[in-house]
Amino acid sequence: MVRSVDAQGFLNELMQTLTERGRALLRRARSGGPDNTDLVELAEMLLSRRGEASGVVLAQTLLSSYAGAPVEVRLQFLKALAERFGTDPEAVAAAVEAYRASPDVTTIGALHAAIEPRRQELFRRLNLAAGGTFALVRMREELLDHLKANPELRAVDTDFGHLFSSWFNRGFLQMRPIGWTTPASILEKIIRYEAVHPIAGWNDLKSRLDPSDRRCFGFFHPQLDDEPLIFVEVALTNDIPGAVAPLLALDRAPIAASTATTAIFYSISNTQRGLAGVSFGHFLIKQVVVDLKRDLPNLKTFVTLSPAPGFAAWLRRERAAEGSAFLTAETKAALRRLDEPAWFEDAATRAELEEALMPIAAHYFLHAKNENGRPVDPVARFHLGNGARLERMNFLGDLSERGLRQAHGLMVNYLYDLSAIEKNHEAYAEAGDIAASASVRRIAKDLVTRDLVPSH
Amino acid sequence: MVRSVDAQGFLNELMQTLTERGRALLRRARSGGPDNTDLVELAEMLLSRRGEASGVVLAQTLLSSYAGAPVEVRLQFLKALAERFGTDPEAVAAAVEAYRASPDVTTIGALHAAIEPRRQELFRRLNLAAGGTFALVRMREELLDHLKANPELRAVDTDFGHLFSSWFNRGFLQMRPIGWTTPASILEKIIRYEAVHPIAGWNDLKSRLDPSDRRCFGFFHPQLDDEPLIFVEVALTNDIPGAVAPLLALDRAPIAASTATTAIFYSISNTQRGLAGVSFGHFLIKQVVVDLKRDLPNLKTFVTLSPAPGFAAWLRRERAAEGSAFLTAETKAALRRLDEPAWFEDAATRAELEEALMPIAAHYFLHAKNENGRPVDPVARFHLGNGARLERMNFLGDLSERGLRQAHGLMVNYLYDLSAIEKNHEAYAEAGDIAASASVRRIAKDLVTRDLVPSH
Amino acid sequence: MVRSVDAQGFLNELMQTLTERGRALLRRARSGGPDNTDLVELAEMLLSRRGEASGVVLAQTLLSSYAGAPVEVRLQFLKALAERFGTDPEAVAAAVEAYRASPDVTTIGALHAAIEPRRQELFRRLNLAAGGTFALVRMREELLDHLKANPELRAVDTDFGHLFSSWFNRGFLQMRPIGWTTPASILEKIIRYEAVHPIAGWNDLKSRLDPSDRRCFGFFHPQLDDEPLIFVEVALTNDIPGAVAPLLALDRAPIAASTATTAIFYSISNTQRGLAGVSFGHFLIKQVVVDLKRDLPNLKTFVTLSPAPGFAAWLRRERAAEGSAFLTAETKAALRRLDEPAWFEDAATRAELEEALMPIAAHYFLHAKNENGRPVDPVARFHLGNGARLERMNFLGDLSERGLRQAHGLMVNYLYDLSAIEKNHEAYAEAGDIAASASVRRIAKDLVTRDLVPSH
Amino acid sequence: MVRSVDAQGFLNELMQTLTERGRALLRRARSGGPDNTDLVELAEMLLSRRGEASGVVLAQTLLSSYAGAPVEVRLQFLKALAERFGTDPEAVAAAVEAYRASPDVTTIGALHAAIEPRRQELFRRLNLAAGGTFALVRMREELLDHLKANPELRAVDTDFGHLFSSWFNRGFLQMRPIGWTTPASILEKIIRYEAVHPIAGWNDLKSRLDPSDRRCFGFFHPQLDDEPLIFVEVALTNDIPGAVAPLLALDRAPIAASTATTAIFYSISNTQRGLAGVSFGHFLIKQVVVDLKRDLPNLKTFVTLSPAPGFAAWLRRERAAEGSAFLTAETKAALRRLDEPAWFEDAATRAELEEALMPIAAHYFLHAKNENGRPVDPVARFHLGNGARLERMNFLGDLSERGLRQAHGLMVNYLYDLSAIEKNHEAYAEAGDIAASASVRRIAKDLVTRDLVPSH
Repeated sequence: MVRSVDAQGFLNELMQTLTERGRALLRRARSGGPDNTDLVELAEMLLSRRGEASGVVLAQTLLSSYAGAPVEVRLQFLKALAERFGTDPEAVAAAVEAYRASPDVTTIGALHAAIEPRRQELFRRLNLAAGGTFALVRMREELLDHLKANPELRAVDTDFGHLFSSWFNRGFLQMRPIGWTTPASILEKIIRYEAVHPIAGWNDLKSRLDPSDRRCFGFFHPQLDDEPLIFVEVALTNDIPGAVAPLLALDRAPIAASTATTAIFYSISNTQRGLAGVSFGHFLIKQVVVDLKRDLPNLKTFVTLSPAPGFAAWLRRERAAEGSAFLTAETKAALRRLDEPAWFEDAATRAELEEALMPIAAHYFLHAKNENGRPVDPVARFHLGNGARLERMNFLGDLSERGLRQAHGLMVNYLYDLSAIEKNHEAYAEAGDIAASASVRRIAKDLVTRDLVPSH
Repeated sequence: MVRSVDAQGFLNELMQTLTERGRALLRRARSGGPDNTDLVELAEMLLSRRGEASGVVLAQTLLSSYAGAPVEVRLQFLKALAERFGTDPEAVAAAVEAYRASPDVTTIGALHAAIEPRRQELFRRLNLAAGGTFALVRMREELLDHLKANPELRAVDTDFGHLFSSWFNRGFLQMRPIGWTTPASILEKIIRYEAVHPIAGWNDLKSRLDPSDRRCFGFFHPQLDDEPLIFVEVALTNDIPGAVAPLLALDRAPIAASTATTAIFYSISNTQRGLAGVSFGHFLIKQVVVDLKRDLPNLKTFVTLSPAPGFAAWLRRERAAEGSAFLTAETKAALRRLDEPAWFEDAATRAELEEALMPIAAHYFLHAKNENGRPVDPVARFHLGNGARLERMNFLGDLSERGLRQAHGLMVNYLYDLSAIEKNHEAYAEAGDIAASASVRRIAKDLVTRDLVPSH
Repeated sequence: MVRSVDAQGFLNELMQTLTERGRALLRRARSGGPDNTDLVELAEMLLSRRGEASGVVLAQTLLSSYAGAPVEVRLQFLKALAERFGTDPEAVAAAVEAYRASPDVTTIGALHAAIEPRRQELFRRLNLAAGGTFALVRMREELLDHLKANPELRAVDTDFGHLFSSWFNRGFLQMRPIGWTTPASILEKIIRYEAVHPIAGWNDLKSRLDPSDRRCFGFFHPQLDDEPLIFVEVALTNDIPGAVAPLLALDRAPIAASTATTAIFYSISNTQRGLAGVSFGHFLIKQVVVDLKRDLPNLKTFVTLSPAPGFAAWLRRERAAEGSAFLTAETKAALRRLDEPAWFEDAATRAELEEALMPIAAHYFLHAKNENGRPVDPVARFHLGNGARLERMNFLGDLSERGLRQAHGLMVNYLYDLSAIEKNHEAYAEAGDIAASASVRRIAKDLVTRDLVPSH
Repeated sequence: MVRSVDAQGFLNELMQTLTERGRALLRRARSGGPDNTDLVELAEMLLSRRGEASGVVLAQTLLSSYAGAPVEVRLQFLKALAERFGTDPEAVAAAVEAYRASPDVTTIGALHAAIEPRRQELFRRLNLAAGGTFALVRMREELLDHLKANPELRAVDTDFGHLFSSWFNRGFLQMRPIGWTTPASILEKIIRYEAVHPIAGWNDLKSRLDPSDRRCFGFFHPQLDDEPLIFVEVALTNDIPGAVAPLLALDRAPIAASTATTAIFYSISNTQRGLAGVSFGHFLIKQVVVDLKRDLPNLKTFVTLSPAPGFAAWLRRERAAEGSAFLTAETKAALRRLDEPAWFEDAATRAELEEALMPIAAHYFLHAKNENGRPVDPVARFHLGNGARLERMNFLGDLSERGLRQAHGLMVNYLYDLSAIEKNHEAYAEAGDIAASASVRRIAKDLVTRDLVPSH
């Protein structure tokens, strides 16, 4: 964070530019006890002519007052954004009528202007403040928490989404390597934001960043210098791993990067809930593939090692369902073992369950769909949507508490083959086709054959 | 500029991601002979699903094909942006009716979505290309040249303006000092873009950047790293100068910056015509004032030394007018001397004309208005609009060919007093009031008194 | 650490430059089993003509072979440095005779050349390797460990010292702030090297670097980019603290830096034993004083909070001595309480011991001298030698296990007053005078008065 | 250059550390009129104990006083360095006797210490000043100018050389690319220092740095950030060029770097006369070869295009000599044409002279030796000494005024083949063998055959 000294000094200088009315408001706002009226008044002032001359100091004050205000005051302000800083209905109505009377470039332009909510301009002006961009992302994060209970905030959320799509356009993001020479202020966020395989502390972090066969990359926005927006952790190996524990072992022996043939994307985390709906992941993965290929020409295979977070819940539903289309009574009986703790420690049980479970898992990925006709599994939706291919399923790939709970230990590899990405993506997007390797398809067939159920 | 090697390698990698249809188009587009159909097809592809998977390579290709195409093809594409990539009238009409039937948050949101021209999303996707932002700025620059002859492009221009207001928001700009240790690739642009007092070459440039009592600052955008968007040249002095030549003299003796009391903004230049309508100037000047104050606490006065580019033309019109409100026949006779070349070399003429001209100049700044009720002089509009005060007029401040032609050598100082900026700005914006020093007002009175014309 | 990939590739390229003899040696050296003969042969080769052409690869190989060799082989090599790479006695004898015969500029120059040990040039050539400087520092660190058992290594040590005085000249060092945005690779060394108040982990580290009222600065050498040579931790406060625990408390509330009046140097640590004898500390402290004064003009007082690591041992000796010049039997009896664990938890004991101990402590600082006539306390020698003044003693300033063991909890403030530094330094260096505040002197008098012992 | 403001402020702070005597001296030294006594007194003070406490301010003052003093005062000071700050003869004599009495590690160490001139420590302390390293390099540059007239300065020069060998050790230098994004402050030095093919101005410079098939690299020292110590200009091509003009043509069409097969080192310039005797050139060339190979794997050939600056003078001597061993009367007659201006414009003359001149040139490179048995041509000495091979001679490769005057237009290619460098270097260094291509050897034979003179 910027040393507050300088920021404060700068602000004090700028305070000089305000007239007495503004200064009084600022003093009150800063003295710790702003109420919603003050925030709204600051916002109005920022949108007024005065805002043109003194925008920086007004924006800074509004944002820091907001940050310091109690949660109810903040919610009041978010509601004011919805009610008071939306579109002027009369102006819209007039523009609509003018357009209907004579629909041309001019009237449509006027309609476009009339329909833009006032808060859009307010957001742009708030961005004048140092740290304004990040403050707005945080504001939306807070708004998302209130959305369910306050559906009238949805319009504000839409405006945030619209704005952030423009501001966080891929063209403005910088991909940067993250390593052990990266500032600690960024690294502590990697620890905090890692969403797939939690990082236990700085030693664990170092073991993921520093060895010669580890890489990490993130997208950064010039205005959020210390905040990765998304990051991916990569292991360089000589084969496609089926389990995550060996990759994360603190005592493993690293290999020379230049000899690796395979890059494993074993964790990818979005960090900013406030940027929900702005997608970075597929850009990041493809860029990393291209960059790694250039730097390490021996790399031939780019593949994920991914969780299957929806599998266990889906299977539970199927097991509970009366007439499951593909779970025979026999299979159901076999699966009951899954409910025993530590079932996977016994070799015989393991073998039995692997045989029972893997065809079901293949079915899950290839045929289980949600109400939109997309795969039930969210991670599958992400990678298949990017144009990757379901390459391999790994029984007992993740024995962590979470891995067992969410997926009975199942892990998956998705393959990123640049030459197939566009084709896969289109087939998926247009027809819902799922790209999968022959071996996964074969395993799925086992289910069908055994259970005499026609494939979906 | 980025080394083309790498960019090319990167693109070739990405080409792999395309299906055959796309590759054929790309090959044609790159082979140098794209026609407008190709450009439009690329744009459609970029907006389609395929664009989601292969956006970077499509955007890159479209922009480089556009850049390499003949001017007619480029104009055709701009027209296609207006016609083909605008709003869908039927969709708007439907959304309008839905809104009228039930004007609420949902229908207004739908109307908002329907009304956004398709080219807005196209622009956002074009920004995926490396250098995309700059290419779009250049595209609009070209569009501005065609605007008069092709008024149907105005809607596209509006969209560009809207987009750039968001992307080039002050919050995303970085102010950086520009000096003799700045990369030559930036400095050559300072030479090229300097719009007020042309820079004769690298020696001249060095004399404006390197001495201890000279400063230069510019705004940069993270995506346009080598392109200053605007820059201001500053001289540190001990008094308010009345003429520009001594400031620019190559052989002057610099003073120690820490002893200076006065900062002179003697040149401010916008560099990107393509960003017309996005204003940076007042942000830049205020930031420079604040920064200089912090670093050099001895500085007390911040003032411009500005041209008066509209003065001579205005005076010509007044002299030609039949019944000028304030030019007596006697004055007109005196002013005829101005038409003689080198009139200013004779001391007596100089004295006479100074007496005649200065009250007229004061009148010009205080009372001459354009059709919008703003000062005729564009530089006056800029600084007064920023909240500065007209401090002093300088007879024969600029004896360059341009200075004489545009303003009979007149120069002006505008004072930036942080504590008065907001007040001045509001009075100007709301009532058209012009902030001026007592001495300028007094000189204006001379005119009134002598000519028996009531003041406005 | 530098990615080994590139370094390796570079070395492989360079290997091409070697003749077969050299390559064979290198292969053996790298295959993990170099013996001392190999190392010596590599060194001879590096000093030979071949070394001129292939110096980089030879240096790199020698250093990495040395690093990978077993400790006995390394010691053999250090001994070879002493025996084989010293001065040629015959050459010196001849030069000595030539000088005696005709002592002039030429013969003295020749003598100078003859007397330089060959290892000096060897060290310079080893520095061609990437990371060579650091490897040499490490080599000397190892040599220091062997010095006692192998006094013949002393000459090598002297040469290292001579070399490092030149290479690590203050003029080549860069002072850099160390903060929470510093790379983790440097910060982990701060944790490791902190020698005064151990850092418990990353949270503790953050609490010393990140708050607005904390600073840390280090000297860095351009060739040892990730290795601070020395660093000092600073707290910004409003008074001179008497105890260290409140400064280090994780839950304290920071103040704004701009309001602080006092800068506390509460920890200063040298990091490289291999640079023993090259002094950085006084340069660092003075530079920090000057820099902080410039950035935070409210700072008026610059003072340490220092341990007194020699106090308890000295007092033990005095208490054990038969006829202590100033410890009466009564005092000795009182001091016996110090041997009780947790004596300081009882208020009465505390009061009693404070009264007994503080005059003794004042005596310790002002009068207890080592065999060189300098203060017994090493920290006192450092700060007084820098020109600082003994400002205040703090009873029970450090209740940590170490603080109690080394100094019965005593801490000291040394004041850095720029205007007195040179005077103090000279008086100390020439006459052994100890700069101390009036209050410390007064407390010392208490001892004299009570015990009727004349002051030294 | 560092902004004088800050440096001044820093110095003023440090002034506080001086006692009155020092301040008086400083005031006089700064007031512009220091005489040699003052400089010597400052030097003595810097070497004294006071120098330990106040070294920075004393060093800074001495160096800036020296820089501002008249040339005679500066020369006096250089002489004082020789006379007053050398070795103490009595101390040396005593150490010599002690060594003779008992020659061991201790006495040799003492002798080593006694023999070091005091100015060595003075130089090290002067380096405390900001910019001290560069000031010392400049001081030696000046000393070199006085050397002929003042041979007593030679010992000082030797000490400078010794010091700079240590400070400018290759291990401390950084190779950096120099391009059009390099700071102008560095680029203006490239223009100034280019010693082979003068750069006509900034446009010419840009044509050597900016095109895709041009590179430039330099060595920099961390303390001389804006001063390249040596730099090499490189052209990427598809064949070995025989003439320099096409390489430098402003209007040539660049090729893509990735397609080039050949890197031409067409200009290499040392920049600091004050670093005479410290050699950088062979390190730079080899490093550039390795780096270019890594970045542009298509590059196979690394070759210079070099002048032959000693050729014309040597040939003039041979032509004037009575009994030239290999110039027949017939050849001499033919060579007379060389004295005609513009002889090369006539095709017949050109053909005739090419036939006459090339065997002589081959002889010049292969057999003409100076008194040390090395090639007469200084550029040949440099490249052959580096281990390069004389690859090709180019008739009329340089038609510039200088090229004709120094070498009758002759240019040469030296080939850098990494796998042959060490072998060539050793053969050259030990036996004086000159590595040359078969074709050059063949041309040399033409001379022998025709003139019936046995080869040397």
